[in-house]
Amino acid sequence: MTRMSLPAPVARLIEELSRLPGIGPRTAQRLAFHLLRSAPELAQNLATALQNLHLQTVWCSRCFNLSEQDPCPVCEDPERDQDRICVVEEPLDLLAIERTGLYAGLYHVLHGSLSPLEGRNVEDVKIAELVERLRARPVEELILAMDADHEGDTTASYVAQVSAAFASRITRLARGLPTGADLEYADESTIASALQGRQDSS
Amino acid sequence: MTRMSLPAPVARLIEELSRLPGIGPRTAQRLAFHLLRSAPELAQNLATALQNLHLQTVWCSRCFNLSEQDPCPVCEDPERDQDRICVVEEPLDLLAIERTGLYAGLYHVLHGSLSPLEGRNVEDVKIAELVERLRARPVEELILAMDADHEGDTTASYVAQVSAAFASRITRLARGLPTGADLEYADESTIASALQGRQDSS
Repeated sequence: MTRMSLPAPVARLIEELSRLPGIGPRTAQRLAFHLLRSAPELAQNLATALQNLHLQTVWCSRCFNLSEQDPCPVCEDPERDQDRICVVEEPLDLLAIERTGLYAGLYHVLHGSLSPLEGRNVEDVKIAELVERLRARPVEELILAMDADHEGDTTASYVAQVSAAFASRITRLARGLPTGADLEYADESTIASALQGRQDSS
Repeated sequence: MTRMSLPAPVARLIEELSRLPGIGPRTAQRLAFHLLRSAPELAQNLATALQNLHLQTVWCSRCFNLSEQDPCPVCEDPERDQDRICVVEEPLDLLAIERTGLYAGLYHVLHGSLSPLEGRNVEDVKIAELVERLRARPVEELILAMDADHEGDTTASYVAQVSAAFASRITRLARGLPTGADLEYADESTIASALQGRQDSS
């Protein structure tokens, strides 16, 4: 007698969805059945977007930013300040800085932070590529814009050390109270940074 | 001056992922960047599975089960008991019953339950199709295997009413303590069902 089981195309989709981080087999099953019940365009459009993802994007060979062209529009723009490089961990960090509209220099995306404990070492991030770039063309200012956590600090210290000869000035993003913060609820480390970094009131 | 923004192919994937239930913009962004950083095969295989989902599956025109062929393997199998139809809400319910290995009859998938409050009425589920099927060929037993909730009860009552003329016997799945249940922690309604449905100890 035939025993019905999940049709192979559905099982395959559930399997592929389960490979994504944070999506377990139950979520994958729920998503697959949602797609089955929806208009075929929903699955089709998602499939097309997935297919184009790698085909239509590249990592800029100069700054390792995510882009549709190589070099990326930032590296290609002569109007941007060529004497300033802002070093970030991830492409999303770069976009966050761009959204402020306050920075007109270039970038360098490390694609990670140093964390010897988790096995992320110097060769796993684009630090050698940064040094190479600086060696070819030293800058006035290197801005270290790593995450404000332990790995970010470790990475910033290391990058500062190996870049020292090629930048007139090496700066880091300020630490302090985030906008809207309630001092009472801020953690000790944040308050300590805000105190140490205090500035004259204008 | 050029301001960098999210490359269009990435923005498009984030948009498509965000259309899925339970996936907000932040999760979609995290998934898109995970795919970007992974081998292109991960995105490619997922795209292929999505493309095949609707192309390679159909709803059985007799029982509305999800299948790779129409009629589905269960409806096509002469060894299955043609005098018994088990009515379920969803294809996954059918698979759950199949996994017990205890049922050899046919199925009918309603694709939902009745919930006038949420606007799910008789015409939104496959009840007319069930009655049509029963009218063409009455059965010995119609098993109502709806969820054990209010909507399931409403649906079962309605299906029992409209099918009464075409089934010698209409049964419902037993309600009671689930295997492994701790009586102390079972809810009142479950204990009430277990008491009402008590059977002679063998």
